[in-house]
Amino acid sequence: MLAVRLEKGVVRIREQTRPRRPEGFALIRLLQGGICNTDLELQRGYYGFEGTPGHEFVGEVVEADSPDLPGERVVGEINLACGHCEWCAKGLGRHCPNRTVLGIVKHPGAFGELLTLPERNLHRVPRTIPTEHAVFVEPLAAACEILDQVKIPRGDRVAVLGDGKLGLLIGQVLKAHGVEVHQYGRHKDKLRIATKAGIDARIAKKLPRAEYGWVVDATGSSEGLQQAVNMTKLRGTVVMKSTVHGTTGINSASVIVNEINLVGSRCGRFEPALRLLRKKLVDVESLISEVLPLQDAPLAFRRAATPGVLKVILQG
Amino acid sequence: MLAVRLEKGVVRIREQTRPRRPEGFALIRLLQGGICNTDLELQRGYYGFEGTPGHEFVGEVVEADSPDLPGERVVGEINLACGHCEWCAKGLGRHCPNRTVLGIVKHPGAFGELLTLPERNLHRVPRTIPTEHAVFVEPLAAACEILDQVKIPRGDRVAVLGDGKLGLLIGQVLKAHGVEVHQYGRHKDKLRIATKAGIDARIAKKLPRAEYGWVVDATGSSEGLQQAVNMTKLRGTVVMKSTVHGTTGINSASVIVNEINLVGSRCGRFEPALRLLRKKLVDVESLISEVLPLQDAPLAFRRAATPGVLKVILQG
Repeated sequence: MLAVRLEKGVVRIREQTRPRRPEGFALIRLLQGGICNTDLELQRGYYGFEGTPGHEFVGEVVEADSPDLPGERVVGEINLACGHCEWCAKGLGRHCPNRTVLGIVKHPGAFGELLTLPERNLHRVPRTIPTEHAVFVEPLAAACEILDQVKIPRGDRVAVLGDGKLGLLIGQVLKAHGVEVHQYGRHKDKLRIATKAGIDARIAKKLPRAEYGWVVDATGSSEGLQQAVNMTKLRGTVVMKSTVHGTTGINSASVIVNEINLVGSRCGRFEPALRLLRKKLVDVESLISEVLPLQDAPLAFRRAATPGVLKVILQG
Repeated sequence: MLAVRLEKGVVRIREQTRPRRPEGFALIRLLQGGICNTDLELQRGYYGFEGTPGHEFVGEVVEADSPDLPGERVVGEINLACGHCEWCAKGLGRHCPNRTVLGIVKHPGAFGELLTLPERNLHRVPRTIPTEHAVFVEPLAAACEILDQVKIPRGDRVAVLGDGKLGLLIGQVLKAHGVEVHQYGRHKDKLRIATKAGIDARIAKKLPRAEYGWVVDATGSSEGLQQAVNMTKLRGTVVMKSTVHGTTGINSASVIVNEINLVGSRCGRFEPALRLLRKKLVDVESLISEVLPLQDAPLAFRRAATPGVLKVILQG
C-alpha cells in the first residue's frame, strides 16, 4: 500500500507492507486526513520523528473483531492507552503515561492507504456529517477540551488570541457555548471566517490590558503567553493552547501580582466535537484551503506550511 | 521622629517630620517591624523606590478617629484601597488597581517611629499573641492565601519548593491545614525548622518527576517554576509564590501536554494568619534570626541580606 513517510525532513510517498491488525484493533482505509501544525513540526524534526505521520483522519473500517464495525465510517482518538494505569482507570486514557500516539509517538499514522487503531478508540461518524467536516473532529475536540477544564459562565467575554486553524475553531466552540468571543488575529482573510461565524474579530494591533476574565492563547508564538497574561484581569484565567518549542519567557511577577490562573490545555474528548458538527454549530468548511490526493503529500505538506493557508486535506 | 530611608540603594536613618494623620487614618507607633525580601529588592532599586520602606509591622495606636483604638496593639493590611472600584466593591481591596501600598507604592512604610494607615486596614492583636509573633502576620497571610485560592483536600501530598522564610511559613500553613507536606530546600539548618514542625523535609538534590498533585514554588529563583512544573503530576496544580524580577523561562509544552494548572498567588487576608498564631499552629519564633533597634537599620538590612539569615526584626 502507499503511505507518506517523513525521512530526515523530507516528505516521501513509499510502497509499504499492509499493516498487521492486532487483536482488539481495527484495520481502517483512509478516506481523508488533515495536515496539522504538529505534522509540520514532525517534518522539521521535533521529537526525532521518522515514519508515517497523520493523526487527523476519517476512515472506513475494513476489518475488525466486532462484526458490526466493517463498512462503518469512523474517526479515532489518537492516544493508544495502556488500559491498566491510574489514568486509564479514571477514563483519562489520553493522559496515560504509557501511551503511544497515532502518527506522533511509536504508532504509524493515518497518512497511508491503511491504518490500525484499537476498536475502543473509534467513533462512528453520523451519516449527516460529511467526511470533509468529520476530518476536523480531532482539532475540534482539542478546542472543546477548554470547556471540560474551565467553567466559563455563559455571557462572559472571552478573548481568543490567534487566527490560525486552532484559534478559529476555539473561537467558534466558545461562541457555540454562549460566551461573547473577541478574536484577535493578524490576518484579515482569516478573521473574516470568525466574523462570518458571528464572532467579534479584531486585528491585533494594540492589545487591551487587563480587560478579560478569560483569555485563550492560540497564537502558536512564543510571545503569545505574555500577551495573553497582559490582557487578563486580576484573578482571571489564561488557557494555554500554543505548544511552542523550547523555552517561553514569562514575567512571573505579572502572574503573581494579579493572581492569574494559567491552564495548560491539550487534546480532548471526541463526543462534544461530533455533537457540534452534527448540529452544524461550527463552520469548518471555511477552514479548508485545499484537498489533494494522498500521492501529492509532498506538495500538500508544502502548501500546508505556506503562510495564509489553513487546512490542507489529503484524500485517501 | 526617626525613620529609615532608602536613598539610591543606601539605608539611612533620618530625622523626619511627624506624619500627618488624615481623616479615617490611625497614627501608629512602631513596636516591631520585619525586614522582607521585598524591602531588600526596594533597596536594590526595583520599582524606582525612594523613601521609607517597611510593610510587616506591629504597632500601638496613638491617635485615631475611633475612640476605642488608641492604646490598642495592631497589625495592618498593607494595601490602601480606593474604596470605590469593582474590586473594592467585591471586598478585594488588596487587588484595587488604584491602591497605594504601605512602604512599597506611594505610602511611607512602617520602618519609622510613627506610621499612618486607614483604620479599616487595622486588626487588633489578641493579648495571647506576643509582638514578635504578630510581626509575622503579613507574610503568614501570604502563605494562607494559597488555601483561599485552591482547594487542597486534607490528606493530599503537597511539595513545597524552597526553605526560605516564605517557604517555611507555607509548609507550616499547609501542614496545619492537614495535608502531607514534603519540603524541598538546600539548607540543612533551615529545613530543620520544617522538621521540627513535623514536616517531611528533604535536601533538594534530585527532584522527583511528575510525583505531586500540588507543588508550591517558593524558591525565589528563576529556575523554580520549571522545577515545580516537572514535579507536578498530569493535571496537577503549581502555586506560584516566587516573584522573580525579569523574565522566567518556562517550557510551555510541558504545561500544555500535562494540562498543568499554574496559579499566581500574592498577599492574603490577615484573619486566618491571626487565627493560626492564636492557636499556636505555626512556629514563627524559629524563623527569627536577629532583633535590632530601629537605629541599627543599616546593619539590620545588611544582616537580612546575608545568606542563611532568616527574619531580621527592627525594634521600634
